Order: sequence, then structure tokens, then C-alpha cells
Amino acid sequence: MLYGNVIVGQSGGPTAAINASLAGVIRGTIENWSIGTVYGALNGIEGILEERFCNLSEIFADKSKLDLLENTPSSALGSCRMKLPPVPEQGHNDETYDKLFAIFKKYNIRYFLYIGGNDSMDTVAKLSAYAKTTDYKIRVVGIPKTIDNDVAGTDHTPGYGSAAKYIAVSMQEILRDCSVYTVKAVTIVEIMGRDAGWLTAAAALPRLICGCAPDYVYLPERVFDFDKFYSDIDEAFKKHSNVVIAVSEGLRTADGRYVGESAQSGVSDVFGHKYLSGTGKALEAAVKERFGCKVRSVELNILQRCASHIASRTDIAEAVEVGKAAMLEATKGATGKMMTLVRTSSDPYVCVPGSEDIDKIANFVRAVPDEFINEEGNNVTDACLKYILPLIEGETAQKYEHGLPVHMVIEKS
Amino acid sequence: MLYGNVIVGQSGGPTAAINASLAGVIRGTIENWSIGTVYGALNGIEGILEERFCNLSEIFADKSKLDLLENTPSSALGSCRMKLPPVPEQGHNDETYDKLFAIFKKYNIRYFLYIGGNDSMDTVAKLSAYAKTTDYKIRVVGIPKTIDNDVAGTDHTPGYGSAAKYIAVSMQEILRDCSVYTVKAVTIVEIMGRDAGWLTAAAALPRLICGCAPDYVYLPERVFDFDKFYSDIDEAFKKHSNVVIAVSEGLRTADGRYVGESAQSGVSDVFGHKYLSGTGKALEAAVKERFGCKVRSVELNILQRCASHIASRTDIAEAVEVGKAAMLEATKGATGKMMTLVRTSSDPYVCVPGSEDIDKIANFVRAVPDEFINEEGNNVTDACLKYILPLIEGETAQKYEHGLPVHMVIEKS
Repeated sequence: MLYGNVIVGQSGGPTAAINASLAGVIRGTIENWSIGTVYGALNGIEGILEERFCNLSEIFADKSKLDLLENTPSSALGSCRMKLPPVPEQGHNDETYDKLFAIFKKYNIRYFLYIGGNDSMDTVAKLSAYAKTTDYKIRVVGIPKTIDNDVAGTDHTPGYGSAAKYIAVSMQEILRDCSVYTVKAVTIVEIMGRDAGWLTAAAALPRLICGCAPDYVYLPERVFDFDKFYSDIDEAFKKHSNVVIAVSEGLRTADGRYVGESAQSGVSDVFGHKYLSGTGKALEAAVKERFGCKVRSVELNILQRCASHIASRTDIAEAVEVGKAAMLEATKGATGKMMTLVRTSSDPYVCVPGSEDIDKIANFVRAVPDEFINEEGNNVTDACLKYILPLIEGETAQKYEHGLPVHMVIEKS
Repeated sequence: MLYGNVIVGQSGGPTAAINASLAGVIRGTIENWSIGTVYGALNGIEGILEERFCNLSEIFADKSKLDLLENTPSSALGSCRMKLPPVPEQGHNDETYDKLFAIFKKYNIRYFLYIGGNDSMDTVAKLSAYAKTTDYKIRVVGIPKTIDNDVAGTDHTPGYGSAAKYIAVSMQEILRDCSVYTVKAVTIVEIMGRDAGWLTAAAALPRLICGCAPDYVYLPERVFDFDKFYSDIDEAFKKHSNVVIAVSEGLRTADGRYVGESAQSGVSDVFGHKYLSGTGKALEAAVKERFGCKVRSVELNILQRCASHIASRTDIAEAVEVGKAAMLEATKGATGKMMTLVRTSSDPYVCVPGSEDIDKIANFVRAVPDEFINEEGNNVTDACLKYILPLIEGETAQKYEHGLPVHMVIEKS
């Protein structure tokens, strides 16, 4: 048994489930006799270097607050985008690592748990590699979270299910909204995901359940071709007057340029203001010019990652479980690992926490595989939707007061 | 007693509550012995002229379907934007009115109920005025719906509460999301409302309940001044690094031009595409240029009016009650009326259906009054928030299947 204190941090973009993993870590320290105090690093590794901690053992002495934390979006501890320098070779020194480990010693930190996406797993990989070169005993474990679902080595990432649910529910509501008029119209919904189309794929989920769906779904895994896009819309108009399309923000044309890029390159108005337009806006303009019909673009934007009120119960439950498992595995001796989710059965859906060596995982991006994209490259397959569907199952017990969600706030000043 | 059939239609932009009013109308015909068949006009007055009806009495013979309808966003009967021609003077003819009344006679329609916003109340006013010039007995009643809350003669409009709740909840979640980083950043949230700031005002609701709120709220009722805007942001940065601002899409500068207009006037990229940028995008560019910090704009877009999954229970309940009351009042003899909501008590909140002469209401726009806007013109008062708060109270019993909402769909073909 390694006795000592824990520090847990959050890093990268916030999600609706990252606090659930934090709650899971804290739950994993309850009646865990190896653990003294659980510190929260404010603003991730950046905050550790400034010794900005909070005492989570005290804050969550009342365990009912953990339920609230699990239904609070965004990173309750704050986040950062800091990347650690390369691990110095044995016998060499690096100021940042020296400082970090001095602080670990000062607070008797024996467990470092870091919740984040691909960049954060890089931090976990470096810290655990560095730890091996020192004689200070510390266990370093990463807990994945990202709405992008692009982390390797895991069936899916905590945070993805809730974002996918928000996207699928919003798409279903947008489809209802778009069906009311008889005039020809195209609605383009832009969804997050620069390199992987997992989130955009979720827009097609209503197809499996209620029979309604966007006409097309374009992922960044396929080259975007304007001519094919126009002929797709022509085809859709033969069937109905209201065409709805889901596009990933990361769509690129054959020359490798982002579709939204043209709109970002030096366009300025009479005041000299430069306007940033995303993929949706660029396609809106293109379709308007080509078809002359009513066109609208909708950018789902940051609500995709913070809309806790429509979080997936499955996702939140798994995020808690993975956080808890990380703490328990670390107590048993795990280090240099990232926690994973292992789907042991598809029907019925069964998923359990696992772990993988961090070196095998960090800095890889997992794209949507070929068998999940249709031949024409303008939609996803049913196999893809069946993979996603169990991840959005169930609704959380979000608490409301006077019509507004009740969140758990940790003061960061 | 006037015996006969009912036709009910929906018109204008969809909302999360317009189907609840439709359900209310149908509920008002149950055990109502004046009523034969309830027809639904597909695509409003446009569909009546083409005799495109559905038989709502048959579709909702199973009353449990009404519960589903009440939690279905958008206009289940479809909508239209058609405006009736001016009412012909006594003794003169008009083809459209002749045709409409011939169809009413053919189907023995004695009750015409129309659910819609300001434009739809114009239709109600004209039809009831025309009816007076004929000897065909028909009762014409309007049921207001609009997320904009800008209809005169009523405390508020069905549909507003749900949109306000979506905006307030989303704003609270965005505030959580924006608080995670330590770098200076401005987030601008663009909210619907071209002429009235009711929706944008709702963004400040979290202030009353959880203490967090956007730094500023700019409504179209006040002239927008860029210099004041910049100095407001300067002030906010003195307090914290993450500034969040809610703006109405309808903001105008002193010269009467929309803030988003500059971005819409002839900006085009290398392909000659013209880009439409809204108020949020225009302000994003302006703030980026002025402050050089991270800036993001979020347009809440059509989800404001169709996000049934986070509808207000109060709003949905009132929408049903108003629809039901419209049917019952019409049966008792009312015609040429618009149903209203009358707040008979503020604490506790009590609201009952009422009605007003349609002539007093149609074609007026109700703006946010002066006492609801602060002196600086950059926020709303607590009095304003106390007016809105009861309207977002409570959550609906949205049914889910496999993680997605269950909606009631009326086939329109």
C-alpha cells in the first residue's frame, strides 16, 4: 500500500461529464485507507505549478454534493491548455519537472489523476515517464474525457455520450421545426469535430428510432466535394421541400483546405472588420448562390459540450465509474495508465472500465472507421448508429430550482 | 348553441408550445356537445384554401396522444406565412374570402381557431370582420403564440416561457463553460428578437437564482453604441477575465442600421460568395479588433423556439389552458377575440385565460418597458427578471425512448 495524498486536475475543453469523473475519483477515495487528503488542482497542471489547490476532502465531506457535481457541466476545477516540456533524459534536469515534483513532495502527493483529452494524456505520459527517472514514489493515471470521442484504446470516451445526445435531440427538434413550411429550404447544421466525425454522426441517430433524419451527414473523414454536395441536394429536393444537412466543422476539400477557410481568409467589410465564418456559413452562402432558395445554417457551438440538462445517464454513470476505477486501480499499484471503457457485449450493451498503457494511447487520433460511413460518403451506416445509440440512453436526475438547473460551484479564487 | 364543425390552424414561426395549444383546443371539444368534427388545417390558411385538412377527431380518438402532442415542438399541422388581402367593403367581393367561406359552408365549419403570432392575429381580425358582412354564422378566435412575447393585450404569450427557459438554462451552462480558463476572453451570445428584447432579457435570469449572470444584456429597445460597449467590456475585465455578453439580434446603432447589417452588405470571398453575418458575428469581429483577446460568438438560433426537451411546464400548461379556453369561449359565443393570459397575482404567481377584442391587439408590437431596463441601457432590472421567472418554472414530463424524445407526428401529405 502506498499511503499519501491525491491531487486531481481537469484539463482541455470542458464537457458535461468531466465533473462526473471528478466525483468518481472522490468516490474512489471513500473508505480507501491508503488515501489522506484529496486536493483539487485549480486550472490543471498550470495551477499545480502555482500551488493553487482546493481541499476536495473538505468540500465534499457532505457526500450529497457529489450528486450535484455529477450534474454540473464544465470543469469545476477550471482547466488549462498547458503542454509539458519533453521529459529530460536521465541525469538531466528540467525546471518544470523539478518544480512539480518539489510540490508533490511538499504535499506528500502520491497519486496524480488527470482528467482530459488527447493533450492531457500527453501530460500523463510525460509525468509518469519522468517519475520513473526519480526515486519519488508517485502513481500517475489518466482519465479520458472528450466530446470528440477520438481517443485511442477505449471503446468511447466519457463526455461523448452526452454531447451525442444533445446533438441527436437537437437535430430531432430542428427536423420538426424545418418541416412546417411548404417552400423549398435547406438547413445546414454545423457540428463540432475538426478531425473526427463522431459528433456529426450522432445527428443521424433519430433515423434508428423515430424515422426522421437529416438528408445527409458529411464527416471530415471524407474529402468534401462541392459538385457532389450540390447533386445530393438536387436528389433530396426530389423527395421533399425541406432539406436538412449535418456537417462537421472540419470538412475539407481535395486541396486540403477547410471548407470554412475561404470565408476566413481576408474577408472584410467597409470598416475593415474581418469576419470569421465557419463551415456552416460558407455552405449556406454556397447553397444560396447555387439554388436561390431559403437557406439557413445553425452552429450547435459550445452547448454541445456543456448542455448538462440533456446529458446521457449512461455517459454520466460511466464517467463516474471510470473516475472511481482510476482511483482504485492507482491504489492497487497502477501507474502510467489511461483508464478505458471496454464494451464486453453489444446486445445487451455492457461496458466496464479497463486500462491501457498510456504510451500506446497518447497523441493518436481515432477517426470514424470506414465501415461506419456509407459508400457515397454522404451519410453514416446503421452499424455506426448502433454503436452510438446505447451511449445516449437514459436521462439524468438534473435538479432544478425555480426552473433553472442546480450546479455545484467550486470557488477558484 | 351553434352546432357545427371546428377548423383549427397554426401559422407563423413554430414554438415549443404551439402544439400544446392545439391539444388544448382538442381537449376543449371533448364532451362539448356543440362540436361535431375537429378538422386540422394543414399549413394554416394556405391549406384551407386548398382543402388540405386532417381529421383531428379521428387522430386523437385515443386521448393519450394529446399528452405526446403537448411535448412535441414545432407546428404539427404545418405553418404558413400567408397574409389575407384587405377585407372588401360591404357589397364588394373578394375571391379569397369567397373561396374560404364556400369551403367553410361545404364542411359546415362554425368555429375557426387560429394559433399564431402578430401576423396570424391579423388573419383572425380580417376573417372576423369579413364574417360580420356575411350571413354565414361562424365564430373566429385567435390563440396567441410567439416566443417573442411581443403581442399586445396579454401578460405574456404561450411559447415565450419555454424559449426563455431554454435561453436561461443555456446561458447558465455557457457561463459555466466560459469560466474554466484563466486567459482573457469575451463570449457573445446572440438571441432572437428583432424588435423586442424579451428573449434576450431571459439570459439574465440565472442572476436571480444562482448568482451567475452575463456581464451585460443589450436589448433592441435601446440604441446600441459601440464606444459605450467597449467601455462596458473594459469595466468587466477589471472584475474577471471571462466576459460574457447577451445581445439581441435586433440591435441597431443610432443611424437605425442593424449592427449585423454592415456584415451583410456586400462582403464576399474569393469565390464571390456573399456571407451573412449576424449581430453576434459582427460584434465578435469588432471586439477582436479592439481588444485583441479571444472572442467567441454563439448564436442560439432556432433551438430557442423548438427545444421542447427543456420546455417550461408553466408555459406548456398555460398553452393548453388557453387553447381549451378558446374553444369553450367560442362555444359560448365569443368571436373576433384573441385569447390572453391575465396575471391576477404576482406572489404567488396566478395566471388565468382571458380574451380581448382582436381589433385592439392585431398589428401592435409590445416592447420591453423602460422600468425593465437599467439606466445605463446595458442590462435588465430585477423587476424584469421577477416578471419572467414564474414563466420558466417547472419541467415537463417529456417521454424518451432509447434516449430520444418521443414526438407526435401528424402526416401532412
